[in-house]
Amino acid sequence: MEVTIRSAAETDRDAIWKIFHEVVASGDTYPFDPKISREKAFAYWFQPGGHAYVAELDCLKQSSLQEGHCLVGTYILRPNQSGGGAHVANAAFMVPTAARGQGIGRAMGEHCLSEARRLGFRAMQFNFVVSTNESAVKLWQKLGMKIVGTLPGAFRHPEKGYVDVYVMFRSLEDN
Amino acid sequence: MEVTIRSAAETDRDAIWKIFHEVVASGDTYPFDPKISREKAFAYWFQPGGHAYVAELDCLKQSSLQEGHCLVGTYILRPNQSGGGAHVANAAFMVPTAARGQGIGRAMGEHCLSEARRLGFRAMQFNFVVSTNESAVKLWQKLGMKIVGTLPGAFRHPEKGYVDVYVMFRSLEDN
Repeated sequence: MEVTIRSAAETDRDAIWKIFHEVVASGDTYPFDPKISREKAFAYWFQPGGHAYVAELDCLKQSSLQEGHCLVGTYILRPNQSGGGAHVANAAFMVPTAARGQGIGRAMGEHCLSEARRLGFRAMQFNFVVSTNESAVKLWQKLGMKIVGTLPGAFRHPEKGYVDVYVMFRSLEDN
Repeated sequence: MEVTIRSAAETDRDAIWKIFHEVVASGDTYPFDPKISREKAFAYWFQPGGHAYVAELDCLKQSSLQEGHCLVGTYILRPNQSGGGAHVANAAFMVPTAARGQGIGRAMGEHCLSEARRLGFRAMQFNFVVSTNESAVKLWQKLGMKIVGTLPGAFRHPEKGYVDVYVMFRSLEDN
């Protein structure tokens, strides 16, 4: 399996919306209305000053018609704050259920840290990692992100009720 | 001194901008471009789904023409996230230099926690309290906010360089 990660193009929008909608509809990882509209989703995912990326598998061989379905993930990278906080990046990642367990999140995470360094950010911050999303927490820790804050009961999980949320952070200055 | 805190009105906009502009221009407490435009400032301060308030002193007695200058502070209150994170409030406060040291920040903070409870929020979170803003940190601690996270070097202070930023949080369920 070869994952290619590249900047999102206008033609990726349908596929990105499909991923976004599926991930958010589950309501267990992102603090969004599970019924968020495509318009609002895109307003979030494609904010001015931000960067959007997609991960795709080489599935054009299978069918030239499946082009839109090759996308197996998407992430965004942007300044977490402006002004005196603009040197810290923020990112968010989405992988559809069917594509999980193949290292796509990890590939996007590594790509993201590399892009953030290239763009001159000094650090990376994730503002809202739901503690019950254990695979995500573990993955980010493998990528050097540390839990620097715990927000008690800050997420209402659809099955588990109020659960903690982590703020994760890492410097991009070292190694 | 009697401080009145009330919802911001359309006619408060000039005075709010004056406060916002002064506070942000110093560049030492908020992660905004110190040269932020009035339009962008208002897009931030008056977000859909949020509430804006002003603190005013009874200065109409002094001059009926000074109505706009009676404002000695402004704050906003809103959900920190949407969906499963919408039960946690977020707030931001501004007091112009000339009005500091009179308890206006504290009055607004107390009003804010009370409003947040009234609106049904279960907790309050401040995402970005610059550690060198000691009077603010102390005030929020007096109001029951706890430092639940430290973001290393997340703010570039105009004189002090990279300084830590605190994430502060408190439940609104108790007392």
